[in-house]
Amino acid sequence: MNALFFIQKICRQATDTLTRMAIGLGMTVGTITAFAQPITPDNKPNDTQLKLMDRGYGMFIHFGVKTFSGDEWSDGTVPVEKYNPTRLDCDQWVRVARDAGFRYVLLVTKHHDGFCLWDSQYTDYDVASSPIKTDVVKAVSDACRKYGLQFGIYYSLWDRHEPTYRGKDFSNYVDYMINQLRELFTSYGPICELWFDGGWDKPVVDWDLPRVYAEVKKMQPDCAIGVNHTVVDKEGSRKHILPDSMIVDNQYHLQYFPTDFRLWDPKIAHRLDKKQYLHKGKSYYLPFEHTVCISKDWNWFQKEQPKTVRHLDELEELFYWCTTNGNTLVVNVAPDQSGRIRENEANAIIALNRDRLHIQPDKPLPHGGKIISLGAAATASSVYEKNDNLYGAHWAVDGGMQTRWAAAEKQAELIVPLNKEEAFDKITIFEYCDVEQGADGFSNKRINRIRSYRIDAWLDEHWECIYISDEPMGDCKVIRFPRTYRAEKVRLKVLDSSLPPSIYEFNVIQTR
Amino acid sequence: MNALFFIQKICRQATDTLTRMAIGLGMTVGTITAFAQPITPDNKPNDTQLKLMDRGYGMFIHFGVKTFSGDEWSDGTVPVEKYNPTRLDCDQWVRVARDAGFRYVLLVTKHHDGFCLWDSQYTDYDVASSPIKTDVVKAVSDACRKYGLQFGIYYSLWDRHEPTYRGKDFSNYVDYMINQLRELFTSYGPICELWFDGGWDKPVVDWDLPRVYAEVKKMQPDCAIGVNHTVVDKEGSRKHILPDSMIVDNQYHLQYFPTDFRLWDPKIAHRLDKKQYLHKGKSYYLPFEHTVCISKDWNWFQKEQPKTVRHLDELEELFYWCTTNGNTLVVNVAPDQSGRIRENEANAIIALNRDRLHIQPDKPLPHGGKIISLGAAATASSVYEKNDNLYGAHWAVDGGMQTRWAAAEKQAELIVPLNKEEAFDKITIFEYCDVEQGADGFSNKRINRIRSYRIDAWLDEHWECIYISDEPMGDCKVIRFPRTYRAEKVRLKVLDSSLPPSIYEFNVIQTR
Repeated sequence: MNALFFIQKICRQATDTLTRMAIGLGMTVGTITAFAQPITPDNKPNDTQLKLMDRGYGMFIHFGVKTFSGDEWSDGTVPVEKYNPTRLDCDQWVRVARDAGFRYVLLVTKHHDGFCLWDSQYTDYDVASSPIKTDVVKAVSDACRKYGLQFGIYYSLWDRHEPTYRGKDFSNYVDYMINQLRELFTSYGPICELWFDGGWDKPVVDWDLPRVYAEVKKMQPDCAIGVNHTVVDKEGSRKHILPDSMIVDNQYHLQYFPTDFRLWDPKIAHRLDKKQYLHKGKSYYLPFEHTVCISKDWNWFQKEQPKTVRHLDELEELFYWCTTNGNTLVVNVAPDQSGRIRENEANAIIALNRDRLHIQPDKPLPHGGKIISLGAAATASSVYEKNDNLYGAHWAVDGGMQTRWAAAEKQAELIVPLNKEEAFDKITIFEYCDVEQGADGFSNKRINRIRSYRIDAWLDEHWECIYISDEPMGDCKVIRFPRTYRAEKVRLKVLDSSLPPSIYEFNVIQTR
Repeated sequence: MNALFFIQKICRQATDTLTRMAIGLGMTVGTITAFAQPITPDNKPNDTQLKLMDRGYGMFIHFGVKTFSGDEWSDGTVPVEKYNPTRLDCDQWVRVARDAGFRYVLLVTKHHDGFCLWDSQYTDYDVASSPIKTDVVKAVSDACRKYGLQFGIYYSLWDRHEPTYRGKDFSNYVDYMINQLRELFTSYGPICELWFDGGWDKPVVDWDLPRVYAEVKKMQPDCAIGVNHTVVDKEGSRKHILPDSMIVDNQYHLQYFPTDFRLWDPKIAHRLDKKQYLHKGKSYYLPFEHTVCISKDWNWFQKEQPKTVRHLDELEELFYWCTTNGNTLVVNVAPDQSGRIRENEANAIIALNRDRLHIQPDKPLPHGGKIISLGAAATASSVYEKNDNLYGAHWAVDGGMQTRWAAAEKQAELIVPLNKEEAFDKITIFEYCDVEQGADGFSNKRINRIRSYRIDAWLDEHWECIYISDEPMGDCKVIRFPRTYRAEKVRLKVLDSSLPPSIYEFNVIQTR
């Protein structure tokens, strides 16, 4: 893995240097089409994808007029004057990203509301028409260069403000998009990634993706392009399947084509996530990019009051899960109404790196160890509705984050057989939680069921309690053992639960 | 501190070596009385006390016939046959202690029930008369030598089994004690510490402490001797005062004399704990030894079902608190009915050392940083019953673990002014909890009041949220910041609480 990583690295550095030189010398990016990397049928990643897979970990930044209106999805009518950060400091955003070990920043340049974070000549719904005229795209891309991070952008296909979007001839809106993308791709240096969203609002063909993709690649051939809900069940279908199901090559289809990577915000891919997807009978290799919010409830734009952030344990395990198998993770850390990332969020994401991950530039990202329980023939004391197909014990160890074991009773046991030759020193549990919808219709709060539980290992012919807790399990429970165990089986014994417990994933892990 | 520590160390190593040589050479310990260190009036620690203060961190082991009866305090009638460990492994106890960084083991050789963990010729209520005849005192002291730990013993004055205890002439019981102590102090090598308990059951004079003390010191002059509830308010009084109050030199009196160190199981001393205590008009220097259970509820003997252990955060902060100021800490980790320390408890106490403390032999114990909020002029949004004397905000920052700020309302604020020159990077909060008594009449469960709260720092002329949580505060909340802050003041804002909140200690700490 490491050897391969470095060979890839060296090859790519050469290309990279040339691209940067070209841009640095003031050449229009159109003149360097020789480096273009359009997606072609393949069973391995191309150069653009390898770079994306190496980056691996990015900071997603949602900021805009909605930061000031308290909405997640406004209808595009929030007055431009609302945008009024009191102490805007884009440099701080990227400093936080650097300290947190992120390798790129993914900036929302335009969300569904159509508000643009740069001075666009094609609309007045932008920062230049607001009270605080700072070109945020420039400020962030400059800071990325300063701090050695790569710079990517999110751009919403769906636009609830721009009049051409609602016009008779939708190609006028496609022109609008291409004009704006030209502004973005020719004024701010290299852009490593382009993230399209909101495609559901129109038929796929309306977006004229082949044209948009070609235009962007002409300007910046190295940019990786993805569209949310990339994969569907059948050719021509719009039924996008859960990333959890993507464990067979060449079974699913690309609804958005061409694209360079898969998206399904905000779902988590399967641990055995596969990479080959079909389009018109040909097979393409596409890695997956995960999107996760640092806050416990899914708020992308910052609200007036500070939000609680996920535990470092959960953030750490999500990191390992999401950055394995050549996939990537972006974590949303949104600046607030002052125009700065809040201290409580900055502290958490920086501590995650300083205390846990210790990410180093030019080195592979850290991993969380080998899951030795994956695919084990797990059994349970009970199964909800006796429906093994939907709720059987095996779903707790299959590696999928949307499937789960569900018990029929409040006190329940899950038994996971292991290969005794394989040692373990960590167990992680992702509990299924009930969700309480927030008043804003978007955010939500997870409510644990499990209140008290223990973990036993079968050692020397008896069950030995190796961990016990009388506290709610939390969104992701991580138990680290100072020693390694070799056991024929382990058991989760739920002692007290508000409802019959359910587990997405129970992972027995070897880290050393 | 470090320089002083090493000078003290070198001086003591010489004495130590001689003592060990003498014992190693088979000399009866009585022949080395030249090293005797009876307590004398002084304003600094003597050699025996300095050794105790250097040891600093010990593992308390409660094990006996009550391990098998489920009692904490039996009346001494549990049949000796009950004692029946199935896989007794004293070596494991000390291996765990070594891996956990403990520098000594404090073994309960005889508890209030009178059951003896060695083969005593003065009673049949001992291991030798039980189904499993292993001399546990020998096995543990041997293992201590093997693993390089010092060995100390607990011996209960109070004895609910021994007939002479209830006889007309109490001096017969004192003889019994001295006979047993002679067995202990002449058969098992060096004993660093002797811990007497249960003195409340008889008038002080009955124990004939001067005789007992002298007898022990004759055998092992280096042994530090303590009696639970050492200090009282007045000469001749039996009203033992809380260690929290011991912040003035030469104000309180020793009810048990002579002794070498103070005890008040299981209370926590004041952060500014003082050391000078009076006896018959003379002043003596006495450090304090803390006693804490690893389990969340105060069980000293193991029960049938595994118990939940304290969080590593709480254990870590208690460690720092209890081992500062020349005081010491013993943590109770009790073996179960199999005769082994349970895996869940071994894992916790070992992880505390491996992941947090990193204790190294012959080096001073780690410390938790400087509390910069100690004695600050704290204010609060409300005070329970408007009684500042009992519940004022200042009690949250005084350094005392029995005093507390209590609010009058569920939503409440505590504001702590700081010296802006002093940076901080950690905050610890010990919340006052309601206690639910366990069915056994001994153990108890702490119930948090605070459900949601935030911490703000006054930075650049505004309150900046640096931490927020929507989870119960827990028994000891530790917030570590990846950066340092310099603030004029910090604020605890309780957002949601089941009852008006109350805080024992709110510490703002500089660790780097």
